[in-house]
Amino acid sequence: MEQQDQHLLANDKKLNEKFLDDVFQILKKIILECKTGNGKVIDFKTPDELIKEIDLTLPLKGQSDEEIINFIKLVDKFSVKTSHSHFFNNLFGGSNEYSLAGDYFTSTINGSMYTYEMAPVFNFMENAIQQLFAERYLKWSTIDGVFCPGGSQSNFYGILAARQHKYPEFKRKGLRALPDLKLFTSELAHYSIEKGAIMLGFGLDSVVKIACDEEGRIIPEEFEKEIQKCIQEGSVPLMVNLTCGTTVFGVVDPINKCTEIAQKYNMWVHIDGCWGGHLVFLEEFRNKYNLISQADSFAWDAHKLFNVPQQCTAFFTRHVGLLHEANALGSDYLFMKDKKLYDATKYDSGDKTYQCARHIDVFKFWIYWKHFGTLGLEQIVADSLETTKYFAQLVKDHPNCELINEPEYVSVSFFYYPDSFLKRKELGEDKSEKFWEDLHTIPPVIKAKMVEQGTMMVAYQKQNQKSIQRKNFFRFIFTADKGKEEAQFALNEIHRLGKDL
Amino acid sequence: MEQQDQHLLANDKKLNEKFLDDVFQILKKIILECKTGNGKVIDFKTPDELIKEIDLTLPLKGQSDEEIINFIKLVDKFSVKTSHSHFFNNLFGGSNEYSLAGDYFTSTINGSMYTYEMAPVFNFMENAIQQLFAERYLKWSTIDGVFCPGGSQSNFYGILAARQHKYPEFKRKGLRALPDLKLFTSELAHYSIEKGAIMLGFGLDSVVKIACDEEGRIIPEEFEKEIQKCIQEGSVPLMVNLTCGTTVFGVVDPINKCTEIAQKYNMWVHIDGCWGGHLVFLEEFRNKYNLISQADSFAWDAHKLFNVPQQCTAFFTRHVGLLHEANALGSDYLFMKDKKLYDATKYDSGDKTYQCARHIDVFKFWIYWKHFGTLGLEQIVADSLETTKYFAQLVKDHPNCELINEPEYVSVSFFYYPDSFLKRKELGEDKSEKFWEDLHTIPPVIKAKMVEQGTMMVAYQKQNQKSIQRKNFFRFIFTADKGKEEAQFALNEIHRLGKDL
Repeated sequence: MEQQDQHLLANDKKLNEKFLDDVFQILKKIILECKTGNGKVIDFKTPDELIKEIDLTLPLKGQSDEEIINFIKLVDKFSVKTSHSHFFNNLFGGSNEYSLAGDYFTSTINGSMYTYEMAPVFNFMENAIQQLFAERYLKWSTIDGVFCPGGSQSNFYGILAARQHKYPEFKRKGLRALPDLKLFTSELAHYSIEKGAIMLGFGLDSVVKIACDEEGRIIPEEFEKEIQKCIQEGSVPLMVNLTCGTTVFGVVDPINKCTEIAQKYNMWVHIDGCWGGHLVFLEEFRNKYNLISQADSFAWDAHKLFNVPQQCTAFFTRHVGLLHEANALGSDYLFMKDKKLYDATKYDSGDKTYQCARHIDVFKFWIYWKHFGTLGLEQIVADSLETTKYFAQLVKDHPNCELINEPEYVSVSFFYYPDSFLKRKELGEDKSEKFWEDLHTIPPVIKAKMVEQGTMMVAYQKQNQKSIQRKNFFRFIFTADKGKEEAQFALNEIHRLGKDL
Repeated sequence: MEQQDQHLLANDKKLNEKFLDDVFQILKKIILECKTGNGKVIDFKTPDELIKEIDLTLPLKGQSDEEIINFIKLVDKFSVKTSHSHFFNNLFGGSNEYSLAGDYFTSTINGSMYTYEMAPVFNFMENAIQQLFAERYLKWSTIDGVFCPGGSQSNFYGILAARQHKYPEFKRKGLRALPDLKLFTSELAHYSIEKGAIMLGFGLDSVVKIACDEEGRIIPEEFEKEIQKCIQEGSVPLMVNLTCGTTVFGVVDPINKCTEIAQKYNMWVHIDGCWGGHLVFLEEFRNKYNLISQADSFAWDAHKLFNVPQQCTAFFTRHVGLLHEANALGSDYLFMKDKKLYDATKYDSGDKTYQCARHIDVFKFWIYWKHFGTLGLEQIVADSLETTKYFAQLVKDHPNCELINEPEYVSVSFFYYPDSFLKRKELGEDKSEKFWEDLHTIPPVIKAKMVEQGTMMVAYQKQNQKSIQRKNFFRFIFTADKGKEEAQFALNEIHRLGKDL
């Protein structure tokens, strides 16, 4: 009946196996190189240099497979190797075949989480992880939640849930119908609470930043003072965000004390465990911070300490049905109530989120989990803490280094003094502002040298705490793939690059 | 110096090549099966059946590679094949080696978009796509934007930008300091505008739904009436969302007329082109809807018509710097101003988003684009429209079908009358409510049969328009991989399953 279809894509019934095989070889090469620490962490080019080395324009006519493979290799060359064993820069890193396999699979089947019909297996997986967290790690008797694209969004869900819980009329009437609400968080918390305050319509003035002690943890007395001030001013303290693993120091707010205070004032307790939430895998931690069992919500990035590709983020809340209450619109076109075969509404997760299509983030983590098992994951967290403590000890033992605080998680912060600064210290110059201003300029120089040489990547930071005077120091991150060998290399490399400055 | 590291992961320096090869074989099988249309589209199990067929618990101890490979195969079996050539169900579908290769690569390097340092190449790519859109497709003289996780979030950015543009004081003071703002959108627009109204703090009462004509497009006169009503009531019309490709009918709102009206009242014009934004690749469309050149923002899901894995979504705005103004906090710990080597702030995209880490979504699309070229992509859109028109003609020619409206994009909606309903029509029964109530129950039955047999997937829908009486009809989606062969199969299959009902 029909003439041959001349369409560019509709006739494409063949698998371009050669091309895929070439791609698979590249993937293997990257994974292996990262695991062994061979090759550069970064092959840095300035913007001006980069556009001379790689063609970043889109062609009018399609290119050959060979051209595309060569291009992918070039992109690999100029991309940061976050899985390299000398990458200590960000709150994630490390490579793993199992989580990657899960991610490749997810891309290939190209599903979406919104309905049971579209993602039966994956909706069950999200539920199973929730249940395990409730029983084993958070000690909650009920749980609800959703995976979402990143830790910031998980914290947004915390704010959203708090608002809906206290003011169900909000959904229809909006913030203008509510009193002046305040969101409390540590002055050293992640900025997503502030971004959330903008996004969700509160505005930055709604964020109350609680003062921290020298170690970077909320001072409970300051928290209560701020609440009382808020109430005196006629505002309503809606929620507090407690951080489990701060962005820079990696410390945990005094969760128990702060939870008791928050409950006294009927506030929602959200725990931002995006970075340090992995600590709940350790019994000792759970015993110490046992009031996590009374938190209202908990945000967690599985992709951070573990070697799971981004993004794999969970939001958990004890309040079952609240997310649905907050977000559901019951759209006909997607969540049909007259579907045959099964009870759709019970397993469709789409309407409790503020997304529509939702990427399948759970599977890569599931495969990783299957490979190591629950006990394995718990050991991985313990191992990472051990490596971190080992590194902290190396720092303490090193004449050119000064540890800023004992690590509670897998972040290690320290000042590095080049030999010339050691001499100035001996002369007592470290009492002067000039000494610290000079030291402040050292980490950017060391960082630039390591980036130029491509040997390592690590971040430098500053913090408000008085004793460290807002001056730059190094912050090393020990994700699960890092061991003692990497720890030794890291400190030697800083010293090699910095000692003569 | 050191004893051997006993950690579970830190010593893992070998590549598990056998496991990866097995995974790659599975991926190839899935891609090929989907392209050829072999195998079932869905192997449906009810929740109770599913948990008997596949172990969806997390093991205490790690499992062997063999167990994991078998498990992945089982997950494949029970997952919907959205890339299957008989999948007409959702607004995406189809498989492509090139976009998949890009996605695999992105997972493997596990980067994040926030800074130039972390993602030099990919930040350039996002910029290049923006520039091409501005020059070739949107006809904008300036452009800014960001890729984000899904169409809903891109529409959120539209609301966020509108709010920031009109009320820069909002960022600090929040919505309570602003007048009562209204967001206008079509009654048939995607629900993300309502979800955005909740999320961003406006509340559902802030959404004004504009009445549509029988074809599903905004009636401009109704739009203006609603604006005037809003102003009379003392509220402020903040923005209008115009849909380019509605969720069900796939039609385009009268963009030119509505833009003129909106401008008269100083409103922000956001275009939700998440579904139908691909139409800007066609010159004829651009000429007809030339006032897209004056839109303030535009949302687009590259992953929809094209065969790019989810999610690949862009938000564009003509107002350069506005996103930064709306979201930036200038966090020290990530966006250091004292970095050496290059000017960081200029190329760091992180602070203009409300996310922190941001997945690299651009690369899969870039590789797809390189393979087809700009001209190829434009032809793909034209081809898809041609297939759609061909299918619409088949529907019109079929005695058991009634086309609801001429497709403007790649969605085809029609009523299907089983033979018994044709007879009842001959007897004039279609004047009675009973006839339509009975017909309403037919699509769910046909859908259940096709899902049980696994031969095809297509959605049924209803709409408010009077002439179709809110009764279920079929809506077929023709993504870029579908041709005439698939179109013929689709209609034959509906008839095979439904004619005797």
